[in-house]
Amino acid sequence: MAAKTAIQDRADPLVRRYSEVRDLTCALAAPLSDADASGQSMPDASPAKWHLAHVTWFFETFILRDHVKGYALFDERFPFLFNSYYEAEGERHARPRRGMLTRPALDDVLAYRAHVDAAMQAAIPALDDEVKALVELGCHHEQQHQELLQTDILHLFAQNPLEPAMWPASPKVPVDMPSPIRWAEHPGGLVEVGHDGEGFAFDCEGPRHRELLHPHAIADRTVTNREWTAFIEDGGYRDARHWLSDGWAWVKENGVEAPLYWEKRDNVWTRFGLDGRRPIDPAAPVTHISFFEADAYASWAGARLPTEAEWEAFAAGRDCRSGNFLRTAGPVEPRPARGGCGMFGDVWEWTGSAYRPYPGFRPASGAVGEYNGKFMSGQFVLKGGSCATPVGHVRPCYRNFFYPHQRWQFTGLRLAKDI
Amino acid sequence: MAAKTAIQDRADPLVRRYSEVRDLTCALAAPLSDADASGQSMPDASPAKWHLAHVTWFFETFILRDHVKGYALFDERFPFLFNSYYEAEGERHARPRRGMLTRPALDDVLAYRAHVDAAMQAAIPALDDEVKALVELGCHHEQQHQELLQTDILHLFAQNPLEPAMWPASPKVPVDMPSPIRWAEHPGGLVEVGHDGEGFAFDCEGPRHRELLHPHAIADRTVTNREWTAFIEDGGYRDARHWLSDGWAWVKENGVEAPLYWEKRDNVWTRFGLDGRRPIDPAAPVTHISFFEADAYASWAGARLPTEAEWEAFAAGRDCRSGNFLRTAGPVEPRPARGGCGMFGDVWEWTGSAYRPYPGFRPASGAVGEYNGKFMSGQFVLKGGSCATPVGHVRPCYRNFFYPHQRWQFTGLRLAKDI
Amino acid sequence: MAAKTAIQDRADPLVRRYSEVRDLTCALAAPLSDADASGQSMPDASPAKWHLAHVTWFFETFILRDHVKGYALFDERFPFLFNSYYEAEGERHARPRRGMLTRPALDDVLAYRAHVDAAMQAAIPALDDEVKALVELGCHHEQQHQELLQTDILHLFAQNPLEPAMWPASPKVPVDMPSPIRWAEHPGGLVEVGHDGEGFAFDCEGPRHRELLHPHAIADRTVTNREWTAFIEDGGYRDARHWLSDGWAWVKENGVEAPLYWEKRDNVWTRFGLDGRRPIDPAAPVTHISFFEADAYASWAGARLPTEAEWEAFAAGRDCRSGNFLRTAGPVEPRPARGGCGMFGDVWEWTGSAYRPYPGFRPASGAVGEYNGKFMSGQFVLKGGSCATPVGHVRPCYRNFFYPHQRWQFTGLRLAKDI
Amino acid sequence: MAAKTAIQDRADPLVRRYSEVRDLTCALAAPLSDADASGQSMPDASPAKWHLAHVTWFFETFILRDHVKGYALFDERFPFLFNSYYEAEGERHARPRRGMLTRPALDDVLAYRAHVDAAMQAAIPALDDEVKALVELGCHHEQQHQELLQTDILHLFAQNPLEPAMWPASPKVPVDMPSPIRWAEHPGGLVEVGHDGEGFAFDCEGPRHRELLHPHAIADRTVTNREWTAFIEDGGYRDARHWLSDGWAWVKENGVEAPLYWEKRDNVWTRFGLDGRRPIDPAAPVTHISFFEADAYASWAGARLPTEAEWEAFAAGRDCRSGNFLRTAGPVEPRPARGGCGMFGDVWEWTGSAYRPYPGFRPASGAVGEYNGKFMSGQFVLKGGSCATPVGHVRPCYRNFFYPHQRWQFTGLRLAKDI
Repeated sequence: MAAKTAIQDRADPLVRRYSEVRDLTCALAAPLSDADASGQSMPDASPAKWHLAHVTWFFETFILRDHVKGYALFDERFPFLFNSYYEAEGERHARPRRGMLTRPALDDVLAYRAHVDAAMQAAIPALDDEVKALVELGCHHEQQHQELLQTDILHLFAQNPLEPAMWPASPKVPVDMPSPIRWAEHPGGLVEVGHDGEGFAFDCEGPRHRELLHPHAIADRTVTNREWTAFIEDGGYRDARHWLSDGWAWVKENGVEAPLYWEKRDNVWTRFGLDGRRPIDPAAPVTHISFFEADAYASWAGARLPTEAEWEAFAAGRDCRSGNFLRTAGPVEPRPARGGCGMFGDVWEWTGSAYRPYPGFRPASGAVGEYNGKFMSGQFVLKGGSCATPVGHVRPCYRNFFYPHQRWQFTGLRLAKDI
Repeated sequence: MAAKTAIQDRADPLVRRYSEVRDLTCALAAPLSDADASGQSMPDASPAKWHLAHVTWFFETFILRDHVKGYALFDERFPFLFNSYYEAEGERHARPRRGMLTRPALDDVLAYRAHVDAAMQAAIPALDDEVKALVELGCHHEQQHQELLQTDILHLFAQNPLEPAMWPASPKVPVDMPSPIRWAEHPGGLVEVGHDGEGFAFDCEGPRHRELLHPHAIADRTVTNREWTAFIEDGGYRDARHWLSDGWAWVKENGVEAPLYWEKRDNVWTRFGLDGRRPIDPAAPVTHISFFEADAYASWAGARLPTEAEWEAFAAGRDCRSGNFLRTAGPVEPRPARGGCGMFGDVWEWTGSAYRPYPGFRPASGAVGEYNGKFMSGQFVLKGGSCATPVGHVRPCYRNFFYPHQRWQFTGLRLAKDI
Repeated sequence: MAAKTAIQDRADPLVRRYSEVRDLTCALAAPLSDADASGQSMPDASPAKWHLAHVTWFFETFILRDHVKGYALFDERFPFLFNSYYEAEGERHARPRRGMLTRPALDDVLAYRAHVDAAMQAAIPALDDEVKALVELGCHHEQQHQELLQTDILHLFAQNPLEPAMWPASPKVPVDMPSPIRWAEHPGGLVEVGHDGEGFAFDCEGPRHRELLHPHAIADRTVTNREWTAFIEDGGYRDARHWLSDGWAWVKENGVEAPLYWEKRDNVWTRFGLDGRRPIDPAAPVTHISFFEADAYASWAGARLPTEAEWEAFAAGRDCRSGNFLRTAGPVEPRPARGGCGMFGDVWEWTGSAYRPYPGFRPASGAVGEYNGKFMSGQFVLKGGSCATPVGHVRPCYRNFFYPHQRWQFTGLRLAKDI
Repeated sequence: MAAKTAIQDRADPLVRRYSEVRDLTCALAAPLSDADASGQSMPDASPAKWHLAHVTWFFETFILRDHVKGYALFDERFPFLFNSYYEAEGERHARPRRGMLTRPALDDVLAYRAHVDAAMQAAIPALDDEVKALVELGCHHEQQHQELLQTDILHLFAQNPLEPAMWPASPKVPVDMPSPIRWAEHPGGLVEVGHDGEGFAFDCEGPRHRELLHPHAIADRTVTNREWTAFIEDGGYRDARHWLSDGWAWVKENGVEAPLYWEKRDNVWTRFGLDGRRPIDPAAPVTHISFFEADAYASWAGARLPTEAEWEAFAAGRDCRSGNFLRTAGPVEPRPARGGCGMFGDVWEWTGSAYRPYPGFRPASGAVGEYNGKFMSGQFVLKGGSCATPVGHVRPCYRNFFYPHQRWQFTGLRLAKDI
């Protein structure tokens, strides 16, 4: 099922990089049937097949069509189907109707991938640097969709009473409960945050600039399932005082009583994951919570969420590749910390910062300028990456963003407080 | 892909009947991929895979589970998934979420069919007559789903900008336009309608009873696409005077301007069908119209829809197997009449009669009693069967029913008038 | 507050008739404040002020504007505001937004009434017979709105936690429980129904025509509150078997557990009425039930609803003015029967007949032709009038109609059964 | 209609302050009929009568009930009706159903006001300082509702095709067009923002703290109607590039083509205001725009919105009482600037800052702690007050907040840019 790549092309580092990213996507989709890959469980999610094709369309459009003379589109009808939201690229199939695309078949989409891969691998070595930068952007773009492919499939499978597992479960390794939270204090002052221009970053991560921190303390680890259970048992979901007004309305309208995918069975809290339904691990970071839940928990705990700048300052200098990330296709889930205080991997951490532009931010010109800037209202920043994020994809300055009610990503929280 | 049946079983007429029905269902689904068979385009429609499994669940539940000692369910989880609306059979998967069932896979459903078929074929010869009647009911039930399977797939494929065809198109045979409508007059008086007890009928078709007809005339053929085009060109869809109040609201809310699946391309009216998009045939009966549209057309034409009893009286004594019905898996579409006045096949004809119980009607007892009676509010009766109805499935007394806005079935109309 | 009419005009019988109708409307609105008269509790209901103005617009438009030379509209802007649904009369204010019309004030609307009344009273004696028939139509039209005015205010007041009463409660007169139902049998056969042309009737009540009845029995009285309570206590609202499919969906979606306006307080069933909240009277006819509830009750009771023709045949020859009708402005409510079997007044009785045209029905031409015919889909017929219907307004052939879920009118039921 | 206050009480400054605020509220409502005062045009808005009662409930609950021995509630049922959103104060009437409260009548609400006023005026002089602070909070609370009362009535009257005016229009004084925007540059650096503890402020305005500004320029005046018209004529509402993604969806879903209340009549842009419909004044600040529109305009103009801190730093030291504010009951509207650069009054200015807590923010304890903090998600900050804001109500640190799609307040914008 994986697209084959001739050995010789991989001599070029960008070809190698490109091919590794592309191969991982196919490996992630390998357990899926044509039907699995075509299902769409909600407007926020997309079919796996759509992800596979959309990232391919990105390369086909912004590299091959725009910069490779003589390239002919694989299928003239695909741009309409697989453009996501680029207004500059014209009309497109309505997002909530992506699940209607039972054709092209998964195999046709894989053929599309192979076709584009062959053209890309041939073309990359000769591209201008500016276009090579677009290839790099496309790789990062595809990595984002690798994560979405996993979380969207998880959401789809969660709708099925059969509760299918995408992967067999890994054996459980007993782990001690993490120690009580230790608070790292910061006296406040000016710090630098945002991307410094070294290596790849999305446009919204810069410019690098100074921010003023106020005196605060930040927790050395994320909140665990056991701690979350205490919040539930203390009536946290039934006490309006802890909740933002919009959050309380969301709780009541949706009857929310626990994180997404949690269910009490035989009096035991279980969660549904890519490896099926299993008891929750009390020592693991809580995940699949909305910003509203994260904020309510922090309020209940007498704390608050860290700001993005506090989080980034605390993360500065740490190895952003060493956490629990996606490294190879297979089951993923947040794991209990084993000493040290990882800021990266496991769960995306909600911050208390609205997703807004940095001083001096300018979107890139052209269609790719629609990548980030236009989403800067109503969403909150998350930091650090998750177990479903491909390793190497995140940085301390990485800015992920979701609406405060969304929780189908691997989202969690870390506490902070004023001092 | 078709379930195989041992020759010897087919000696029993009911086994043969059962097997023929079951084989045709599989043949109808043969062109579908796993993804095609899993898609659901609207709450009114179901995935093909669900149809394949639901009709099987009917036999497994009401025959094998209830009447065959020692039968073990193929899968204990399937009744929850494949019960349609039988409240007496317990909780079930929500209808609008049937498209989420990417598992079981199409192959698993076919295996379910084969398993049940084997058990049924072995069991049928020894069943009591009362249970055999349930088998017959199950066959007719499956035939209904054969029609729905086709119309649901058509609706699903119509959502796809690629406009996939389920079957290659048949070559067009030029046909003369039908003659102008001739009116068959009826002086009124008492007639008998409803099922007379000979052969199979659904419970709602009886009891046979007298109805009083009033003097009227009924058209000798259905309304054609050319006639419908005249209605469009005369502004029929923009003039409130022709429309029922609910119909006018429906037209405005949905921007309705033509029958379902019609689109004007290069200034030519085309329609989408199971053989893809093609120009409409002016001589063929108009189809995919709602009751609201049928009623508005009749009003525009200075006529009305026939009542169910008028229709049934006019159809009495005609051969209800000789029309344009589904006889084998392949493309279906309403065809121009070639002389004679067919009351059967081609298009279901909307009547002006609300679907209500006949005098003395009593639903069957038990779960199968939920089959018809509980739908007797808000729907209108359609008569005669369509090109997608399996031949032999309908009778003059057959009562099909849909809500007045629904039009994804092969629905058409015949005019009547008071005299 | 009542419009004053010069004595001399009332010499003309039609002037007298007109003036009595007009005066009663004002009397019904007398207890209302400007705010009460402006409130709209749901799209189905209209503000009292709107009713007061709309019926006036009817006379102003179809009599004064069309047939009285030199008449100048009271206010050029009012037709846009107070046309209800007459498409032929042009654009109009959206129905669900009628509650936004805090102006014109109630006093302005009363002035509008007085202006039109003066012009009408002056004009009536000299009108042609055909136009006089329109005046008569307008009077019946206004009587319909008299009933709606009461039921719409009741619905509005029911939204207010203060539960205001429009009228002081009448003293309760103890009444014996009615006897058990006695069944009047009918052997079936041809009967004549519909309006015979004598006196006024709406277009939809005719033509008079024959209908074939089947052998049946019909109850001599309507179902009481005590009987309804037994249905509730037997779990009637929780057992899907009794319900039409659409009805069961309605029950679950709306959490229906009792008739509209019923609430259990201190373990006693109470109802809200125009005289405030009071305990239900077990001997009185149940009211404020939907068709779905009526049908479910009948099913639970092993019976069915009568057809319209059965009801009308049973009512033929009875005095349709002698029941519990609205005779003067004041509190109204269904009362326990005191012997005899009233078919008229108290509660509108749901029939099992869909509201569809009679054989040979033709809507009147012009705008007034939109009065009835265009509502003939999806609704059921109710017969007999209610305690809120002005006396003299109904006839045996009178056809009221509502959607099966609606229950803010004084609706009840009478049982029938096949024999 | 105004509540009368004995002269002697007004000797106490807080009594005088209290009485002045209360009197102005009544004066604002004076032109309203009972019906006007009861209407609710959308869930975001409340009836004027409800505002009149709710602010009274605030004093009755948090002062009289909690701190004045022997005080008896005016009506035990009112707290349920007139609590807005204080969860700690128990259940309450649903916000979108406030328009159903045609009772209590406006006169009853005014009597409620008079009753509470008498008790308050008697009680104030003897209250503890802490309770006096609550009285002050209640006055500011009432001032907020004075503004809402005006904007909610404007929205209600705008739904009425009669377009009633609340006040007669003031004569127009010709004014020169303002000069082109002049940019005030700021080199960046640390500034102090937030409330410094002097005088009254809402909890969310503090604590005072340092913020780091980045080099930027800010416009010396707000954007005018003429400038906005250029944006419209340049296709600003039809070009997705200028818009945030959520904003573009909002534009398309609602068919937005101009500010709220604008309509082109006879080819001239007009606006609806509290003085009826009149042509727009090209020299006046544009108003009734959403954040989405403000942001799109700024993008189109090659600029951006100022941050809250930039705005506040620029406003520091200016006289926050000298602008175009509400000073007495009568028509209000944004006026053209006449030299100088007012930061206060005329229109609330959208900032680019999400409404989030300041460092060290803690909500007040008890029910009044629900005042601000719980709304800190999804909303944006507006600064400076408007023509409908009572003079003296705002400060440079005042934080108003609305959702990005809301525009029924007097909202406008000022440009800023990075340098």
